Amino acid sequence: MALSDCEVQFLDTTLRDGEQAPGISLSPDEKAEIAHALDEANVSVIEAGSACTGPGERETISRVTDLDLDARVTSFARGVRNDIDLALDCGVDGVNLVVPASDRHVEEKLDTTHEEVVATTVDLVEYAKDHGLWVEVLGEDGSRADLDFLEELMGAAIDSGADRVCAPDTVGHATPDRMFEIYDRLSKLGPTSMHTHDDLGLAVTNTLAGLAAGADLVHGTINGIGERAGNVAIEEVAIALDHGYGVETVKTEMLYELGQLVSSATGVPLPPNKAVIGENAFTHESGIHTDGTLKDDAMYEPYPPEKVGRERRLVLGKHAGRAGVKAGLKEHGVEVSDDELSEVVSRVKELGDRGKRVTDADLLTIAEEVQGRERDRRVELLDLTAASGSGTPTASVRLEVDGQERVASGTGSGPVDAAIAAVRSALGSAANAQLESYHVDAITGGTDAVVTVEVEMSRGDRSVTVAASDSDITTASVRAMIDALDRLVANEETPVLADD
Amino acid sequence: MALSDCEVQFLDTTLRDGEQAPGISLSPDEKAEIAHALDEANVSVIEAGSACTGPGERETISRVTDLDLDARVTSFARGVRNDIDLALDCGVDGVNLVVPASDRHVEEKLDTTHEEVVATTVDLVEYAKDHGLWVEVLGEDGSRADLDFLEELMGAAIDSGADRVCAPDTVGHATPDRMFEIYDRLSKLGPTSMHTHDDLGLAVTNTLAGLAAGADLVHGTINGIGERAGNVAIEEVAIALDHGYGVETVKTEMLYELGQLVSSATGVPLPPNKAVIGENAFTHESGIHTDGTLKDDAMYEPYPPEKVGRERRLVLGKHAGRAGVKAGLKEHGVEVSDDELSEVVSRVKELGDRGKRVTDADLLTIAEEVQGRERDRRVELLDLTAASGSGTPTASVRLEVDGQERVASGTGSGPVDAAIAAVRSALGSAANAQLESYHVDAITGGTDAVVTVEVEMSRGDRSVTVAASDSDITTASVRAMIDALDRLVANEETPVLADD
Repeated sequence: MALSDCEVQFLDTTLRDGEQAPGISLSPDEKAEIAHALDEANVSVIEAGSACTGPGERETISRVTDLDLDARVTSFARGVRNDIDLALDCGVDGVNLVVPASDRHVEEKLDTTHEEVVATTVDLVEYAKDHGLWVEVLGEDGSRADLDFLEELMGAAIDSGADRVCAPDTVGHATPDRMFEIYDRLSKLGPTSMHTHDDLGLAVTNTLAGLAAGADLVHGTINGIGERAGNVAIEEVAIALDHGYGVETVKTEMLYELGQLVSSATGVPLPPNKAVIGENAFTHESGIHTDGTLKDDAMYEPYPPEKVGRERRLVLGKHAGRAGVKAGLKEHGVEVSDDELSEVVSRVKELGDRGKRVTDADLLTIAEEVQGRERDRRVELLDLTAASGSGTPTASVRLEVDGQERVASGTGSGPVDAAIAAVRSALGSAANAQLESYHVDAITGGTDAVVTVEVEMSRGDRSVTVAASDSDITTASVRAMIDALDRLVANEETPVLADD
Repeated sequence: MALSDCEVQFLDTTLRDGEQAPGISLSPDEKAEIAHALDEANVSVIEAGSACTGPGERETISRVTDLDLDARVTSFARGVRNDIDLALDCGVDGVNLVVPASDRHVEEKLDTTHEEVVATTVDLVEYAKDHGLWVEVLGEDGSRADLDFLEELMGAAIDSGADRVCAPDTVGHATPDRMFEIYDRLSKLGPTSMHTHDDLGLAVTNTLAGLAAGADLVHGTINGIGERAGNVAIEEVAIALDHGYGVETVKTEMLYELGQLVSSATGVPLPPNKAVIGENAFTHESGIHTDGTLKDDAMYEPYPPEKVGRERRLVLGKHAGRAGVKAGLKEHGVEVSDDELSEVVSRVKELGDRGKRVTDADLLTIAEEVQGRERDRRVELLDLTAASGSGTPTASVRLEVDGQERVASGTGSGPVDAAIAAVRSALGSAANAQLESYHVDAITGGTDAVVTVEVEMSRGDRSVTVAASDSDITTASVRAMIDALDRLVANEETPVLADD
């Protein structure tokens, strides 16, 4: 079947297979919030967890079933009656019943036989159906199973009442040819689902291969989290089907929001170079790409960022070109001549060559130097002291603001927090500047690693990004904040502390 | 052609298209180190950069050409003679000559015509060949180009002496059907290369589709870095070809080392759920998977981790089961009864339910509580003071070691470094414990976010992982280190500070 003719729905297993990834644990509130968003995005089935995992997990699944979503809510269940009973206790609409399919799982893991597996499966399907459940039967490690046995097992499941069957590529072993071969046969038995993992980088491909062979439900996770290299990413399948084949599935404009929600709940950061949801997916730095994008949005993008709930960004760095630098300066109200622009571009590249991200503040400083403009700092850090340890963290700062010295102290949950409190106190409420974002990259270099703090601050309708680096996270944080504030007021006439 | 019959080589563009990703800039030393490793791994062509970017970049490319590698070293060049001249100045073996192919690029970006593009391309290929260069011609945005024009352009390139041609999927727009269609025609003209991007999650698939149609060189980057959602990841194509089709390319056992090298040089972290190189690619937490893996390594893995230079890890968390917990305890010499094991498992799951990673120290503490064993701490932090800011960062600690109080101070590049120096000084060299790794997750929550520090410490042939959380990074760092040391000496008879 041509992919463009497929009707495809999603089963989200972020809350089950996604959560099985090492180090991830979602609270009942987090699962409920994610389930809500998935439902709103038109995901058809939400596998909310594994009821057999324990009482904490059952409480979590019950929170999701209590939401009364449009989506069908299910639990994973191993091939034993008790798991189905535990799922029923959580009030689910259905179960994803997993039985062994490959010889490795039938014989080595569970020490049983093909005949017993078929008999148990039939018994469990009938049991679950008798209790009013929607039932999907998964033949675990299906991609490594003997295809004749897989067909027999899945046929028996359908014959005994299963609503659909699935041959998961449990270990991410299959090639698309193999997936097509399997689903070409299984899809003749009844409705079939795809469940792929990305160990070979083929998760999306294998899902598409199965859909082309007749499957119509895709198991996936947001951000592709899951066992090992993860499950297939829902956002990737959705956008590949939409852009590549004109097949609509979920509300794609919610994909970025979903990605951020899951990232924040799981603590698994979004990789910058990840399709659809990565920070760089619609960000352009190189001169050629920036110039092209300024001429025509679609020059270096396959589809507009709005389609997945995002915005385009142009940033500066080593590969910057004239068009991008000019656009960046204009955003901050700085006009330059052609010669000045050449010099600014060259210095931006130099800074990029040294491995630095070029922030707004860097660009403005370069432009001032090139244009020979003197800039009097209006807000300056004169000194900073921070102390922490067994007692209450405390810090003091001495600032000069519009020529006036200000000293203040603060306490906080840690020295950074205390120092920021001291800065706020020194400025008073009149500074009217907001800390929009605060970010510190992960530290792996050792205890003496240089830490880079990036902040975005706004005042009125202007905002500015600044980065500061220091071996002391407190010093870097305060410097970044002060520099940002100074940049924000640089071109203003009014006193920084007007109403103070 | 069946993929299993393909002979495939790699062109690495980590140092060019990879580096074009926002925020990445590699120094000459870093490029040289990466190029060395790529060469050792049997990558055939290394695109070292874009000579036209600037003098800094040209210095970097020259560093790579000076290495005298087996791999062919090339530079990216736009379709102008000056770019070829600049590449020649760097001593490259060849150029990746980019000319516009799609109407969007021909007409909108460069305001030219099909005829002019063909004429310019022929001229430039002849110019480059006259100067002794290996020449690959890339028709930019080839996947969105008119196929007849693409064929005409690439045919003209080959006829005028180009060594190979490539129709890059510049914006990650294509489906595999489209890539097959393109390469089915282009590969009849001469040798062809694949160049794909992952905007739709189809980078690997599209590369395989082109290879099946007759291409034999794959452009890719380590870790899939590159413009937007990145280029196709070399490690994914290499392992898909190897495991899926029995096609050998690069030395796969070097893939993880390459991934770490590029991650460390670029500052782009390895996503935990990334195929081949992600931290979790061979890590198992859930009870079912851990139990299966302990019975048979291959139960939940498509190929052994050693194939890509890695090791398998079993970790504990919310989805832990009996087999995994038992194996974890045994590693630290702790034997438990069946009933005790059930209780330990249940408490490990409870800790996991609360969203915590379960470290070695957590597991051992739980086992002690369950077995009612009293553990006297042998190393304890009594108090800590750290001060930093405008002056030299300093810290002091008061420890109790084997009942003996120890006070020491230290200075460092920041308060964490100073505090660790103070701990080292208090313990003296005799503690004989090494800080094997120190990691802090990225901070995005705000200035009062709780920071989690994870350390691994070793003493003799034992090692232990500990995590500590606090709003103060210094306190968390010191607590983690002290707890780790205490764990390491818990079962020893000898004094902690034996030779002091």
